[in-house]
Amino acid sequence: MRLFNIGLIRVLTTDDKDLLNIHGKILQGNFPFEVESRCIPDQSTGVYSEETHLKAVPKVLGLAIEMEKEGKEGIIISCAADPGIEEAKQVLGIPVVGAGTAVASIALGFSQKVGVLNLTESTPEAMKQVLSKYLIAEETVSTKNTLTLMTNEGMESIIKSSLKLKKSGVEVIALACTGMSTMNAASKIKDRIDVYVADPVIAEGMIMWNLLNF
Amino acid sequence: MRLFNIGLIRVLTTDDKDLLNIHGKILQGNFPFEVESRCIPDQSTGVYSEETHLKAVPKVLGLAIEMEKEGKEGIIISCAADPGIEEAKQVLGIPVVGAGTAVASIALGFSQKVGVLNLTESTPEAMKQVLSKYLIAEETVSTKNTLTLMTNEGMESIIKSSLKLKKSGVEVIALACTGMSTMNAASKIKDRIDVYVADPVIAEGMIMWNLLNF
Repeated sequence: MRLFNIGLIRVLTTDDKDLLNIHGKILQGNFPFEVESRCIPDQSTGVYSEETHLKAVPKVLGLAIEMEKEGKEGIIISCAADPGIEEAKQVLGIPVVGAGTAVASIALGFSQKVGVLNLTESTPEAMKQVLSKYLIAEETVSTKNTLTLMTNEGMESIIKSSLKLKKSGVEVIALACTGMSTMNAASKIKDRIDVYVADPVIAEGMIMWNLLNF
Repeated sequence: MRLFNIGLIRVLTTDDKDLLNIHGKILQGNFPFEVESRCIPDQSTGVYSEETHLKAVPKVLGLAIEMEKEGKEGIIISCAADPGIEEAKQVLGIPVVGAGTAVASIALGFSQKVGVLNLTESTPEAMKQVLSKYLIAEETVSTKNTLTLMTNEGMESIIKSSLKLKKSGVEVIALACTGMSTMNAASKIKDRIDVYVADPVIAEGMIMWNLLNF
């Protein structure tokens, strides 16, 4: 099977190769992709606020342009806030997919009663745009950033918030942070609570694969 | 790899085993599914109008209930008009996915400038609901039903309509008929016109796989 060359952009600055490549590894395990991951510089706690989002946009765009020049066939911005997605789409000639729009749309493909589970204050603008009136509830995990999310305490907070979403009548939960993919939150939520979950890393892979496959 | 047992409902009545199983074969080639296909009775020209849609609903529901009882883990209504989807979701305890909502949501995951390519008069209600204001153009292939679609003439009509959609500013085309998957229309459109295409059979598989995988 032909493998597609994908450039994946992490918005969490890290020297740790395993952490850098963890989304790419999930994607390679599920799609016919050869993924190269790069991270933006100087944002060691990721994107988790309007300020960190705005800081990330030009850096994401720079990496996207660089990877297109090097021959990548598609660019994934692997962050649910989709920083720089519109800017990159306007400039690049290859498909650009963001985790936020992807996971929102996959959730919408199953139900019009969507709940969003956020890492920070509120649902990213890109996800709100896709979901519009079908976003019926949102919850925020009480943790500071992607790093503190990856603890037992973080997981318990995710379960608690998911339960609240379910009680609000939500049929499917869209996870609004790719850190939740890394910690396999979707499976853990489904094991403890009877609700469907859309995973942002799997979602970005699905949308990209659909675009490249035809 | 564990295979999920999927019941697939065709709304085109046929004795031809190859035709009956063609969506299932596409899905089995792309997802970890074991697919059993059944068709509703007495609709040899499929669903292509309000009347044929309404006639299909109770038949689809009957098949869905039957297949859940027999142990299927998910039901796919493999028709872009999603006949009976709401009814089936209310009654069944397993996930029910329709081709129409699935393909609309996959298209939306890539762009907010979506065009729909229809077989009959206008965009199915289920797709309109998902796309809302992001449905910026729609076109109709001038062919009578799923069977006349599968000819060279049908393909030329598809290309012509796709070109019109692209000229309307559409960034991605959602195919609103699973017969277009059968004839591999997505690849053919992409070969002739530089536009992204979302395929309904692949889309229904993606959404179902995401729901079952976690």
